[in-house]
Amino acid sequence: MNSGKPLEILHQIDREYCCLEKTAAVLRWDQETYLPPGGVEERAEQLALLEGIAHERLINPETGRILAELGSVPENPRGDRTLPELERDFLKVIRRRYDRAVKLPPDFVSAAARAEGLSQAAWVRARGDNNFTLFLPHLKTMIDFARKRAEYWGFGDRAQNRNKAQGGDRAQTLYDGLLDAYEPGMTSSEIGALFAVLRERLTSLLEKIKLCPPPDASFLKQNFPVERQSAFNQKIMDYLGFDRGRGRLDISAHPFTTSLGSHDIRITTRYFSNNLLSGLFSVIHESGHAFYEMGFPPELRGTCLADGASMALHESQSRFWENVVGRSRPFWKACFPMLRECFPGELQSLNGEAFYRAVNEVKPSLIRVDADEVSYSLHIILRFELEKRLIGGELEPERLPSVWKDYTREYLGLESETDADGVLQDIHWSMGSFGYFPSYALGNLYGLQILEKLKKDIPAYETTVAEGKFKLLYNWLEESIYRWGCRLEPGELLLNITGERLSVNPFLDYIEGKYSELYGF
Amino acid sequence: MNSGKPLEILHQIDREYCCLEKTAAVLRWDQETYLPPGGVEERAEQLALLEGIAHERLINPETGRILAELGSVPENPRGDRTLPELERDFLKVIRRRYDRAVKLPPDFVSAAARAEGLSQAAWVRARGDNNFTLFLPHLKTMIDFARKRAEYWGFGDRAQNRNKAQGGDRAQTLYDGLLDAYEPGMTSSEIGALFAVLRERLTSLLEKIKLCPPPDASFLKQNFPVERQSAFNQKIMDYLGFDRGRGRLDISAHPFTTSLGSHDIRITTRYFSNNLLSGLFSVIHESGHAFYEMGFPPELRGTCLADGASMALHESQSRFWENVVGRSRPFWKACFPMLRECFPGELQSLNGEAFYRAVNEVKPSLIRVDADEVSYSLHIILRFELEKRLIGGELEPERLPSVWKDYTREYLGLESETDADGVLQDIHWSMGSFGYFPSYALGNLYGLQILEKLKKDIPAYETTVAEGKFKLLYNWLEESIYRWGCRLEPGELLLNITGERLSVNPFLDYIEGKYSELYGF
Repeated sequence: MNSGKPLEILHQIDREYCCLEKTAAVLRWDQETYLPPGGVEERAEQLALLEGIAHERLINPETGRILAELGSVPENPRGDRTLPELERDFLKVIRRRYDRAVKLPPDFVSAAARAEGLSQAAWVRARGDNNFTLFLPHLKTMIDFARKRAEYWGFGDRAQNRNKAQGGDRAQTLYDGLLDAYEPGMTSSEIGALFAVLRERLTSLLEKIKLCPPPDASFLKQNFPVERQSAFNQKIMDYLGFDRGRGRLDISAHPFTTSLGSHDIRITTRYFSNNLLSGLFSVIHESGHAFYEMGFPPELRGTCLADGASMALHESQSRFWENVVGRSRPFWKACFPMLRECFPGELQSLNGEAFYRAVNEVKPSLIRVDADEVSYSLHIILRFELEKRLIGGELEPERLPSVWKDYTREYLGLESETDADGVLQDIHWSMGSFGYFPSYALGNLYGLQILEKLKKDIPAYETTVAEGKFKLLYNWLEESIYRWGCRLEPGELLLNITGERLSVNPFLDYIEGKYSELYGF
Repeated sequence: MNSGKPLEILHQIDREYCCLEKTAAVLRWDQETYLPPGGVEERAEQLALLEGIAHERLINPETGRILAELGSVPENPRGDRTLPELERDFLKVIRRRYDRAVKLPPDFVSAAARAEGLSQAAWVRARGDNNFTLFLPHLKTMIDFARKRAEYWGFGDRAQNRNKAQGGDRAQTLYDGLLDAYEPGMTSSEIGALFAVLRERLTSLLEKIKLCPPPDASFLKQNFPVERQSAFNQKIMDYLGFDRGRGRLDISAHPFTTSLGSHDIRITTRYFSNNLLSGLFSVIHESGHAFYEMGFPPELRGTCLADGASMALHESQSRFWENVVGRSRPFWKACFPMLRECFPGELQSLNGEAFYRAVNEVKPSLIRVDADEVSYSLHIILRFELEKRLIGGELEPERLPSVWKDYTREYLGLESETDADGVLQDIHWSMGSFGYFPSYALGNLYGLQILEKLKKDIPAYETTVAEGKFKLLYNWLEESIYRWGCRLEPGELLLNITGERLSVNPFLDYIEGKYSELYGF
């Protein structure tokens, strides 16, 4: 038992599985960037075949046999002491992947993939036509598939057992099953507790801000030629230290980061000539994701351990670079002259301070991706509440558009006029991704809690940012976060770094401090 | 027997195999266009895994069992009359693929793939450093693998049998085995016979041209900004009728065409600011390849029949568009004003006739890809002679650089100074592609022989080109060539169209006619 041989086979299976996943990532990246319209259908077939083969590799009987042979994961998270720590972490993670995969019948997986394809296409049409009815049947199907998936993963059963024993809430637990896929170890009741405080304090901060005069951001309403935006963004990537030997920037309808290989991490952005900030902050945001992916150490590369600890941890990194660094005063003091060089006419009479104030204007918007740092999390809490109820069966999908409007009024104080700018604005549900949204807001929490420790270790943090010595920050993040890959669950990782459990306070302290100074109260 | 069921299974295997091949094409396209340098190694692993899986799918025992069950291919090329013609052609082609694949041991295939990767990398370095010695060991390995491959395919054995019976030349037959992979049914002795006439008449044509004053092509020596070259090439694609909904143009170090799907045919080109013609004629050439791939009919798409009849047939199409159409007088009479619009300063005092004369300047060059229409085939004949002798073991790889120089002097009347511009100029041998080169010259022959028939069917051919009514030509080619995919072998296809076997005369008549008029003798 625990001999080298079966473990070797498991590593081989894992390497091939990961390699096929990266191959699929190439196809997906191409789909979002350069695929001609005629190729869409066949690309879906190629991806389905590839995903099917990858799935088969992972769930082949050999994997199950070896995992059984190597024993079950002990309660002690660092496991059996006869194996090196890295191998124990490998076993823990591959077992988790295997369990998740093997529990889903192949027919279910391919039916879900097909349905997601149709659903996304319907969502695109529905959003274009501002017609929720076109999307409704697909939304229902996506909800059914999501519930079914959580049931296959055993969350339905577990819930039923709890129902019997404790009279628990079955539906809630199905949603927990979905959450767990993105945020291992996190439950909806924990999130609910964090989000309650978050909502209260952010709402009260928003109230105060509304009473103050806004900064002058009128200069952002100019036309910023896309070629020059693109040229500046290339500069910013270099300035942040993005290694072009191991990645690149392209354009897609929705910005994203993807790993096509351990040394091939690609980010995308999009440009609007009437919006300088959208393309720019997407590049900084996605660079943050890319740094995480680039930072996995050699021994994890090409294995299941070369992954973020969770969606939220990943988001903590993108949001750290985008907001904490990228929307900070020292950053723009240093960068603004570079930006003004690209737009000498448009920005001639301005300075870094004015730009800093403008990019931090708080102005609640109907659109999540346009939201400022203060109201952003409210968009997420709204979606969390709605998707929890959709999966729980407490909210009929038919009623979603009107409930969405009610929530938007209640959470953001805004009147949502169209469904296209309301319930249809995000792609997530159309892809069957329920339980994903909370990651965005949790990412803010993780990021700022981690920053507190970073500032203790690098007391000259502000100067570091002002002087563009990002390598120092990168090294700290690499040592604290990146090098672990997904060996630790997000909670463990945070405990490791800060000695604390996840809290809303560092984020709220940061945001209240920053915006009370900016708005002068 | 011959029931629908096994045939259905065979179709399923074929569809998956083709789908995996297209997937690999996505990875290769990306490798040549956008892959960051860091991703090179892992991409090679991804491709090796994918090719391995595709290979396994094709050679699984089921394929062999079904092929055996469905009987062997009858001598009559149209086969067993109880099956529809399309199914018989499918069986013929998949059997050929299966036989080729199953005869190569998996270990050999993966060892060859790895060695090709190393060899290509060594060739890049060797060419960069003008150092043949760096490449020599890899060239030897490539020759060994090529010989071994032909032996696995049974050409060694067949040759040995012939040796016994007829005292034939074993080595020659190994090379025939390699040729056959690119040009089904063609032998090196047939090619040798065609090339002998070709060489004689082209050499004598070159002699005559050398005595005449060259056209004025000095204006081509200007600087042509790459952005404007690119803009014009996009226009030319549209003018030729390239369907952007089903394909696209990108940039790579070496121009190529690849099918990433039935409706996703991509071409590439490269730009040099001091060479207007290189990027431009590459686009027209690759568009010719793309039209062929785009023209396969619905019933062949996604199957092994959606392929060119042979490398040479494919090349006949690219060369038809590049040379016969793209370097013709009526074409430039019509297009030149469009080109001058993009380069008003550079081309202001010129007209279509002057441009036509300049792009057809005959000027033997050391570099194959820079060669004019007259000397091009001589480059090919040279390579054919050398690779035949390399595979046959009559030429020691060590002696290749000096023999290359001798041949260059003899065939082209040029002194080759460096190996980088000599024996190291082409990638083919570094990839183990022996037997590929003849396709280029055979393509010229096929193309012009087919043109004779096209002109009979479309007597207004010249006007058609002058008026840019390329849809008429496309439709004729679709009906005559494209729609067959690889259902017919190249010889059959040519017979089908022209009623004749392959001949050098149409090409030589065309080229002697065109250049005696141009050079005035």
